[in-house]
Amino acid sequence: MVIKAKENNVLLRPHFKTHQSAKVAEWFKEYGVECITVSSVKMAEYFANHGWKDITIAFPANILEWKEINTLANSINVNIVVESIESILFLESKLTSPVGVYIKVDTGYGRTGINADDFETILNLLKRLKNSKNLIFIGYLCHAGHTYNTSSIAEIEKINKLAKEQLLALKTFMASEFPLAEISFGDTPSCSILNDFSDYHELRPGNFVFYDLTQHSIGSCKLEDIAVALAVPVVAKHPKRNEIIVHGGAVHLSKDSLKDKDGNTYYGIAVKLNGNKWDVNKKIGTVVKVSQEHGIIKVEDHILKEVQIGDLIAILPIHSCLTANLMKEYQTTDGENISMMI
Amino acid sequence: MVIKAKENNVLLRPHFKTHQSAKVAEWFKEYGVECITVSSVKMAEYFANHGWKDITIAFPANILEWKEINTLANSINVNIVVESIESILFLESKLTSPVGVYIKVDTGYGRTGINADDFETILNLLKRLKNSKNLIFIGYLCHAGHTYNTSSIAEIEKINKLAKEQLLALKTFMASEFPLAEISFGDTPSCSILNDFSDYHELRPGNFVFYDLTQHSIGSCKLEDIAVALAVPVVAKHPKRNEIIVHGGAVHLSKDSLKDKDGNTYYGIAVKLNGNKWDVNKKIGTVVKVSQEHGIIKVEDHILKEVQIGDLIAILPIHSCLTANLMKEYQTTDGENISMMI
Repeated sequence: MVIKAKENNVLLRPHFKTHQSAKVAEWFKEYGVECITVSSVKMAEYFANHGWKDITIAFPANILEWKEINTLANSINVNIVVESIESILFLESKLTSPVGVYIKVDTGYGRTGINADDFETILNLLKRLKNSKNLIFIGYLCHAGHTYNTSSIAEIEKINKLAKEQLLALKTFMASEFPLAEISFGDTPSCSILNDFSDYHELRPGNFVFYDLTQHSIGSCKLEDIAVALAVPVVAKHPKRNEIIVHGGAVHLSKDSLKDKDGNTYYGIAVKLNGNKWDVNKKIGTVVKVSQEHGIIKVEDHILKEVQIGDLIAILPIHSCLTANLMKEYQTTDGENISMMI
Repeated sequence: MVIKAKENNVLLRPHFKTHQSAKVAEWFKEYGVECITVSSVKMAEYFANHGWKDITIAFPANILEWKEINTLANSINVNIVVESIESILFLESKLTSPVGVYIKVDTGYGRTGINADDFETILNLLKRLKNSKNLIFIGYLCHAGHTYNTSSIAEIEKINKLAKEQLLALKTFMASEFPLAEISFGDTPSCSILNDFSDYHELRPGNFVFYDLTQHSIGSCKLEDIAVALAVPVVAKHPKRNEIIVHGGAVHLSKDSLKDKDGNTYYGIAVKLNGNKWDVNKKIGTVVKVSQEHGIIKVEDHILKEVQIGDLIAILPIHSCLTANLMKEYQTTDGENISMMI
């Protein structure tokens, strides 16, 4: 991702909500990363306390946290995201230090942001920001999250083509008054699969630090690129049902799911773990059910002989962000324990 | 639940995995509760450190934790659950203090346990346990979790009738050798809805401490019985889509869901919050989507006028255990902060 950003002459501002770890963040520093993205004020505080000095909170600003935003903005460079005049007016009245501001723009995902072609609303916000003392307009921020609902590279290309057209049209339309507006773009599928981002100013992928089965199903990564797995002990075997039971449920994996080609829901793929290293080519089975603490793994006959009660096995997560967020700690393949934000 | 247990002359051994809090546990003590259930060795350690002296770990024993089980058994009364000869043999060779043992019996849920009518397998385990020094057989433990998949009281009654027949048949069959075997039973739907548990020795409901929308949909509780809600700030409004966006997603609520009568999936119900108190009669809308940090709430027109950006609102959770587990802290309606196991 660092190379791709350099080739496009854009800034890589990776999203740290996936790993939530100061130690993992250090690894990014080794690649020259200095600007980061987070999804909450609390996460911004955590990374600011660990020496990060340029942080975008890529979430519609929670105006109730204006005090915390002020405190952060006193010591580091903080950018926030707005999408309403109400939030701008409120923050304007409360902020005492300059804060960078992105307008959240929706290019079709339909979660948050102002529709990219709603020039009128965007212009209203821009006019207000232009006269603001501490809200410093930077540009437009877009998360093309609808790439997560795709199943082909052609669809991702189509979403990105449209997003680019919309964002560039918006930038052009507003250029007379805001010629320097930047475009912040990013989602792991787009940034993993596509190569041309030269029209943007920065990229904000996050999940790529670990990837997961969702990204694999989209085509963002190979199975062997998945860099995090949940180690779980086998606690029971049910040969008649071809199931093994592990201590690893919704409080460990979370409950995101995918559907297999027959339309059956699953919650992870279990593979063999050898010491601290797993092997994606040694599949144990599919996690077909999770309750609070239990995981139920469907296996073939030979696995019932190979896997014993008390074995530790690895589950590749459906959504690594949620699994990491629940576990609150990592162990590297070298056995080093790595802490996270609590 | 305390009254129901007394009326049935059975022990109430509530499951503490829902609240995971030493402070909430104290409230149980005021009602005379001294024996508890947990779902992991870690949770047993937490409550043992907070003075609880009789704890059942109602999960197929993770034999890799034999050292921790030994440590616990040195200082308090610990019961574990087994369902295989392998686990028994392993633990027998490792345990140095007496540990109470339940055999996990499956009366139709199909998650863990030996089928209640598989007398042969159960007898094999019993024979082994009879000669064990530190594994002290107590009885049969059953979780009728299939009550969670029901939609009528009649179904729950049917499940319980069958479970009781199976468990009593099992007890009778083994009575010549194990006349004192106890039956430990419990799931919140059964314990909430039914009244006759006089054939059992103890009940282990847990979720009833808070209840949630799942329990409400089953019929275990009224909406106003739900005793925990997630407070979230409104960060954006999308009038054209009749949606409001809150900072409250999968890392706060978790991703358990229910289906409404039209088959649409939802992740919670938002209601108004007045100070620290919510009102289930003042519905704001339905949480129709959650991503990592975002919650999307579908609302009617009038709500868009009544609810403002920066308002705090309450979400009644689908599954309170998972929401509590993610939040790691409570605030009471009186404003007191209550910590949880971390």
